[in-house]
Amino acid sequence: MTSRKRRQFLAFGATLGLASCNKETPAKVDSAAAPTMRPYGDRSPFEKTKRAARESTKSIGVGSSRTPLQDLYGTITPSALHFERHHAGVPPIDPATHRLVLHGLVDTPLSFTMEDLRRFPSVTRPHFIECAGNGGGELVGNAAPDAARSHGLLSNSEWTGVKLSTVLAAAKLQPTAKWVIAEGADACRMARSIPIAKALDDALLVYAQNGEALRPEQGYPLRLLLPGWEGNASVKWLHRLHVAAEPALSYEETAHYTDLHPTGKATIFSFEMEASSVITRPSGTQKISGPGPVEISGLAWSGRGKVSKVEVSADSGKSWQLATLDEPVLSKAATRFRLAWNWDGQPTSILSRCTDETGYLQPTRDEIIAARGPNSTYHYNGVKSWLIAADGSVSNA
Amino acid sequence: MTSRKRRQFLAFGATLGLASCNKETPAKVDSAAAPTMRPYGDRSPFEKTKRAARESTKSIGVGSSRTPLQDLYGTITPSALHFERHHAGVPPIDPATHRLVLHGLVDTPLSFTMEDLRRFPSVTRPHFIECAGNGGGELVGNAAPDAARSHGLLSNSEWTGVKLSTVLAAAKLQPTAKWVIAEGADACRMARSIPIAKALDDALLVYAQNGEALRPEQGYPLRLLLPGWEGNASVKWLHRLHVAAEPALSYEETAHYTDLHPTGKATIFSFEMEASSVITRPSGTQKISGPGPVEISGLAWSGRGKVSKVEVSADSGKSWQLATLDEPVLSKAATRFRLAWNWDGQPTSILSRCTDETGYLQPTRDEIIAARGPNSTYHYNGVKSWLIAADGSVSNA
Repeated sequence: MTSRKRRQFLAFGATLGLASCNKETPAKVDSAAAPTMRPYGDRSPFEKTKRAARESTKSIGVGSSRTPLQDLYGTITPSALHFERHHAGVPPIDPATHRLVLHGLVDTPLSFTMEDLRRFPSVTRPHFIECAGNGGGELVGNAAPDAARSHGLLSNSEWTGVKLSTVLAAAKLQPTAKWVIAEGADACRMARSIPIAKALDDALLVYAQNGEALRPEQGYPLRLLLPGWEGNASVKWLHRLHVAAEPALSYEETAHYTDLHPTGKATIFSFEMEASSVITRPSGTQKISGPGPVEISGLAWSGRGKVSKVEVSADSGKSWQLATLDEPVLSKAATRFRLAWNWDGQPTSILSRCTDETGYLQPTRDEIIAARGPNSTYHYNGVKSWLIAADGSVSNA
Repeated sequence: MTSRKRRQFLAFGATLGLASCNKETPAKVDSAAAPTMRPYGDRSPFEKTKRAARESTKSIGVGSSRTPLQDLYGTITPSALHFERHHAGVPPIDPATHRLVLHGLVDTPLSFTMEDLRRFPSVTRPHFIECAGNGGGELVGNAAPDAARSHGLLSNSEWTGVKLSTVLAAAKLQPTAKWVIAEGADACRMARSIPIAKALDDALLVYAQNGEALRPEQGYPLRLLLPGWEGNASVKWLHRLHVAAEPALSYEETAHYTDLHPTGKATIFSFEMEASSVITRPSGTQKISGPGPVEISGLAWSGRGKVSKVEVSADSGKSWQLATLDEPVLSKAATRFRLAWNWDGQPTSILSRCTDETGYLQPTRDEIIAARGPNSTYHYNGVKSWLIAADGSVSNA
């Protein structure tokens, strides 16, 4: 083997040449152990990744669980690993008896079964959902050990349902209609007020996720989906739409999900999630097995439209390179970025920053603190860095 | 309520106005029954759809199970419902000990761990996989009761992995290399010969499916993926790539997966899956709840590139209307089509036909029989119709 070939060979960690291939190739195969076909499949028992949960010890059904972004590939979040944020548990709803009621400032109040909703013209659209609190721990200096705990209140799915505008047209809005108050069937009747412009733009009533019925934790059998807006407003277990002239000023849009200013005042109804990104591989708790070629990969997204570019720095922010974006790049959907890198074995930090089609550039943490003060944890989208040590281990910077 | 409004109201099956909304709205909510957060979620217990399995009673691990297309939405097939076709069971492979060996007509034979493969630059691409036998029952007149049994050997996923060309470049192909023989680690060592042009074009070594690791039934931890080609050639549980000057003429590319001609001769290496489509809703075993607006929806695909149009007939083939295609329409990926229809309550047949970007139009069953004879069941892609009876029930035409 020439020296060049040998370097190439070692670069990918290949340990054996042909001579010993036959010894090494066979995986352990035990045809007697082959499972019979399963009606509904499951993952390999060797796969252990899970959502990172944080449940309240005081109230049943209050808490969150985060998508393990560091273990995932591509752009789709497996439904089993979609993040959760519940305010009063997951109601066990029978779709046969579930109804969506549409009333208020409409000419014809309507009540729909799930089957009624499925007769409407439908659309399928990939979109992310991000909790307004995602990344907020980074602002206040919590050193999240991994991408799940730093940015895992973000997931991305292919959603299918009816445009809310189609259903509102069936009921005929009255001229005074300015807000749609969406209420869930969970125990706390979680409610949010949606401006009529969003309701008539791209809002969806969603009954399917990644090809099959919604999962219980994402609102089965029906949820609101507001592409690009903070997740809390995409009301789950949707059972009521009340069309009104004024917002409800509900608990979840006044006591929470508001942007605190240094003055002590807060902005309400700040729905849009701004451009953000996070490197998921390599990221916290992972280890690069040695110097050589490594792919840096992560997710970028913007609530304002498409990601136009992602830049990656592998030298602690001194220089930036343009990452490749996986096609198709879709509006208000997570985009996978990638950069082929050659790690020289020296300690460094790796960072990513996203620019969206409006020209908006993801800010640094310092810029966010300068603009909003140190306590405004909702809608945090600062540039995230991971530290790589000489032994290849990756940790929060 | 005016007469026009009343018609609109009834058209969507809405049964109640506002006065009784409060009685009807609440779903049964029992917060005490709310599950604690699950590390890896599952579907609602009300959801029962499953793969339609057919296993050999004589040989362990031989058989197929079909995707229940009639119950699905959008374009992604949930991994738990991806079709299966096994020739010797599902090997339970430990990814830590699995190796891919690349040898034959290359300058540097290589052996890769899964971690080695993940260090290469990767890509994520949505593609369908279709078994060459999909739809063949339609040719020979089996009246499949539902879309699973007529067309369910088709699934569509977001796949992530390394381009095969990248890995071949690391080993450096010799000038005499014309075929890559891919072998699986299942008990029968299923093997297929891949022309080098496809290997260097869009072939992938895939380790992830719909965001997470491949499922065992789809080749965990590594499979070949040949976009647009018959599924059997996308070898699962991939452990060996042998680069050669001639094909292997393996069992699965000579005794099976060949196209029989009326003369008794057969074509081998006919890999490409031609344009096809199937209406999945309404389809066999479903029932339209009554006259009025109904969405006709289904899937279309082509192994040659993008779907350019889908036409739907709701009058037994007398006239055709252009269906809407869900964006983005991707090459060698399933495309969802939709047509808003108003069912008048009369018996009829509904059909779909796909044209791909090469201008190829999906043929009728009669055209296929005229061209290939009545026994050539592989690569069947005839236009599929469903019969709607006066009571709204749908069956195979």
